[in-house]
Amino acid sequence: MTHRLTDLAASLPASVPFVGPEAQERARGAPFTARLGANESPFGPSPRAVAAMEAAARDVWKYGDPEYFDLRHDLAAHHGVRPEEVVCGEGIDGLLGYLVRLLVGPGDAVVTSAGAYPTFGYHVTGYGGTIHTVPYRDDHEDPEALAAKAREMGAKLVYLANPDNPMGTWLPVDAIARMLDALPEGCLLCLDEAYADLAPPEAVPPLDTSDGRLIRMRTFSKAHGLAGLRVGYALGHADLIGAFDRVRNHFGLGRVAQAGARAALADTAWHSHVLAQVAQSRDAIAAIGRANGLTPIPSATNFVTLDCGRDGAFARRVLERLIERGIFVRMPGVAPLDRCVRISCGTPADMEALAAALPLALVDAATPA
Amino acid sequence: MTHRLTDLAASLPASVPFVGPEAQERARGAPFTARLGANESPFGPSPRAVAAMEAAARDVWKYGDPEYFDLRHDLAAHHGVRPEEVVCGEGIDGLLGYLVRLLVGPGDAVVTSAGAYPTFGYHVTGYGGTIHTVPYRDDHEDPEALAAKAREMGAKLVYLANPDNPMGTWLPVDAIARMLDALPEGCLLCLDEAYADLAPPEAVPPLDTSDGRLIRMRTFSKAHGLAGLRVGYALGHADLIGAFDRVRNHFGLGRVAQAGARAALADTAWHSHVLAQVAQSRDAIAAIGRANGLTPIPSATNFVTLDCGRDGAFARRVLERLIERGIFVRMPGVAPLDRCVRISCGTPADMEALAAALPLALVDAATPA
Repeated sequence: MTHRLTDLAASLPASVPFVGPEAQERARGAPFTARLGANESPFGPSPRAVAAMEAAARDVWKYGDPEYFDLRHDLAAHHGVRPEEVVCGEGIDGLLGYLVRLLVGPGDAVVTSAGAYPTFGYHVTGYGGTIHTVPYRDDHEDPEALAAKAREMGAKLVYLANPDNPMGTWLPVDAIARMLDALPEGCLLCLDEAYADLAPPEAVPPLDTSDGRLIRMRTFSKAHGLAGLRVGYALGHADLIGAFDRVRNHFGLGRVAQAGARAALADTAWHSHVLAQVAQSRDAIAAIGRANGLTPIPSATNFVTLDCGRDGAFARRVLERLIERGIFVRMPGVAPLDRCVRISCGTPADMEALAAALPLALVDAATPA
Repeated sequence: MTHRLTDLAASLPASVPFVGPEAQERARGAPFTARLGANESPFGPSPRAVAAMEAAARDVWKYGDPEYFDLRHDLAAHHGVRPEEVVCGEGIDGLLGYLVRLLVGPGDAVVTSAGAYPTFGYHVTGYGGTIHTVPYRDDHEDPEALAAKAREMGAKLVYLANPDNPMGTWLPVDAIARMLDALPEGCLLCLDEAYADLAPPEAVPPLDTSDGRLIRMRTFSKAHGLAGLRVGYALGHADLIGAFDRVRNHFGLGRVAQAGARAALADTAWHSHVLAQVAQSRDAIAAIGRANGLTPIPSATNFVTLDCGRDGAFARRVLERLIERGIFVRMPGVAPLDRCVRISCGTPADMEALAAALPLALVDAATPA
């Protein structure tokens, strides 16, 4: 029989926003030497988080608390907000899906940057919304152009990552404030701050959850080293945060996930350790890039985007040659950003592997197959 | 500002399908002595699954494979189907949400039993569908009435749990086969088989994934003792299974979840051990019920529903008095099923606690406050 999908569902492509490194390893028949493509944290999670997950694993026959009470209260205390202003979910990916579902229906206008996080667009398309984009400006997202496009299209929702992925650049606090004032009435800014806890203070606006014009997304996947646990959270006005209870998968964060995230949040010493490692690795990637004639773009994240100085086809070849040599990396998908490859921070061993592979990849890439 | 929710989102209540035992513990200011309300498995997960989760916790800085390749292949081999006929997700709850999203839009008719799994109805309402119900018959779901109602309403989707929750009863294979033949053209049967691996063979139809008329939901939360890990899967026709890739949260199952589920599936000895414990506990619950003048309803699950022999108000008092005494249990929400309380299988210590508390709860319940 033909399944009676909704018209919207029938119109959607079967898509995977990202091909995982595991699929690439299966295809190449060998594991990667260095896993530097997904902005994970090879410095690992807090040992206290590991211990908490191990303890929770023995108790995992119990459902997790569907209210995420303790985790939300910990996060509220950490950020100096009320628990009603925090919602947790299955990674920022999951929370973006819920947010889009709450706000966006068929034909609704949504604005983001061309080349920004593909999973956001996946959700907007998935709920029938229409994505309108503006280009990056000088490798930065362009808040004035985003706000102007939002006004032009009567957008309900604007998405901005700050610090940005895939470029690693950041906007100062006052640029975000001006952007909020320039949005049309009733338009929500979704500020994806996955990298905020790696960024300089001037990139992170003060938390004002009384301001209903924005919602902020955070994650345990980056600095906290818990990508494979899938815990994200959003901070915002209690009215909007409360609306997530209308649509979320209430048991979506299990017992191990909640326990691991709480322990990671509490381990501030580990967090400082990771920040120092990330800073060292950013310097190392920049130095390796420069030594090979590439230009590192200043980064407020746990990755460095290297400008390969030519077109997208060349950068694509560099990426492919790196992957062939066991270095998992990714690259921006849209010109002119696609003249770059994006390298995640890693351990000294990862950096050695990168330093060894990059010159060879560049030589190969200079000669199209 | 007022957030511009979609008309549908604005119409939804902020709801939690189930109040978790943790919230009840917070309200009563003390932990439960026996956790027998959520059909969890106090016998615990396989020690091999615990070891796999512990190992994965140390690697949890890596995202999980978004294709769930190994887990899907293991499940396909286990069930003798193709990997393309298996989709994994964030518990059956998560998969039900995806399924409803694929099939149900505003005004679409969906059929289920009055008193069946509330989370299914939560999703249908959440996507704008209209739930039509038929009553249970003799404490069993009524497949003939469900199919008749589906024909009457032109339903796109029918939901049936077999074995059933909250009653624990089951339908034989031929009743399911007759029901499929009686559904209207293009109507999909969602067969929730969360308890299938605890059920007698005559309750579990043979797997025929070429039959596009049904999709079957399974879980690691019950017999496998991994409720807090959130891993469910669906088996069905490859066309329908493939459609989940249009809407799912691709990284929704993390690395610990995938590792734990794979190890649990492989540990068939532990599975047999749990089945034996569950059978013992079912007998114990039935005996405790009978000793107190209650009638156990025959069960193919890891719980026993006890008929308290009076009305819903009485059973509600029994439940409340049990909870006051530290015994977490739940009960059906709809008459006449609500004359019962539902007791999950547990350890011998859990059964002792139940045996001690039930007579006192019944005495108290006989005298309305």
